[in-house]
Amino acid sequence: MDALRVIEVKKSVYANNDLEAKENRDLLRDQDTFMMNLMSSPGSGKTTMLVSTLNRIKEKVDIGIIEADIDSDVDALTIQSTGVDVIQVHNGGMCHLDAAMVRQGLDDIKSKTLDFVVVENIGNLICPASYDLGQNLNVMILSVPEGSDKPLKYPKMFTKVDVLLISKTDALSIFEFDFEGLEESVRKLNPDIKIFPISAKTGDGMDAWCDYLLEKIQKRSPRQ
Amino acid sequence: MDALRVIEVKKSVYANNDLEAKENRDLLRDQDTFMMNLMSSPGSGKTTMLVSTLNRIKEKVDIGIIEADIDSDVDALTIQSTGVDVIQVHNGGMCHLDAAMVRQGLDDIKSKTLDFVVVENIGNLICPASYDLGQNLNVMILSVPEGSDKPLKYPKMFTKVDVLLISKTDALSIFEFDFEGLEESVRKLNPDIKIFPISAKTGDGMDAWCDYLLEKIQKRSPRQ
Repeated sequence: MDALRVIEVKKSVYANNDLEAKENRDLLRDQDTFMMNLMSSPGSGKTTMLVSTLNRIKEKVDIGIIEADIDSDVDALTIQSTGVDVIQVHNGGMCHLDAAMVRQGLDDIKSKTLDFVVVENIGNLICPASYDLGQNLNVMILSVPEGSDKPLKYPKMFTKVDVLLISKTDALSIFEFDFEGLEESVRKLNPDIKIFPISAKTGDGMDAWCDYLLEKIQKRSPRQ
Repeated sequence: MDALRVIEVKKSVYANNDLEAKENRDLLRDQDTFMMNLMSSPGSGKTTMLVSTLNRIKEKVDIGIIEADIDSDVDALTIQSTGVDVIQVHNGGMCHLDAAMVRQGLDDIKSKTLDFVVVENIGNLICPASYDLGQNLNVMILSVPEGSDKPLKYPKMFTKVDVLLISKTDALSIFEFDFEGLEESVRKLNPDIKIFPISAKTGDGMDAWCDYLLEKIQKRSPRQ
């Protein structure tokens, strides 16, 4: 396995994150690269879901992962075990990534050679909701053990995302989770959101999610 | 049940959070009031643990809860069902509380009449670790479903807390959790940390935690 590449990114010197996000978006369009911004609480299963997704789609599209963490490399090393190219971004303790940090990651991972880039954001339901990165798809994970009341508590995040993955559905054997109540509260904030219940452990729901994702990627990157 | 009191707090106009935290600490000492700052990820079980704790100790000490949320009142209403006095603090979308916000809560809840104040912080493992509130005890919850690798990823939080509650131990039936590995990594950061495994659902471990907490409160508030 190659040595893990780590870059220490800095907050942008520019005040205008939205402008830099637009530049990322234009760059990705010109490169026919599709970028997903993946957000969740700590421990909701972002990395496990990602490994399961990569193993299902990595033969079909060229993928690179920008793995954000405050300080550690533990998730990036897990991702690297799939054989997919990964770059570890350390952001020095901030609770989010901004567009300029992502741009450093895109350049390092050579996004122009890729169909699909995933940014695994810092684990947090607050700060990442305020920063456009130039992504084409915003995805969040809510795990069953976290509970179905979270849209009431973190409305900005649930309003902003295109897709909600409800993870660890295998834990429904011991945790109560009000799917109907969740869907009702989420759709009040975000009528068009796509919701996929998944279990990376059992594989339940992963095909439907990966089919949806592949269609999005291949629409952008028709060379595949 | 009384109507829930809600205050919209503002970021301090002062630059020096540490100075304001010291003022809170001095005030609490003069009032013989013990303050706990409770932190965790979203969905790790702060409110459920708190309800279970309050029901065990509320006859022995006078308690008030400062419940922080970005926007909702759902946790405060749950706490209020215990009969313990609670004030809901809305902080307008920030990822932490600061000492000035807590001071507004202390004044509103009449901390001088109380033995024990709990600040239930915003659900987040990053921002709250950087703000001293003037508390006497920093407690964090890590739930079994979140996984035992979290000290590597959020070292500042694990370094800062006095007590780590490992919650939802009833979920060990379906989730792997490396207690020895966790303890080893936590103690490297924080050799003196107290660790209590608990399940608010089954009650396991709650007596040991509540005995520890009561001793701390009553040492500060000997009038009980």
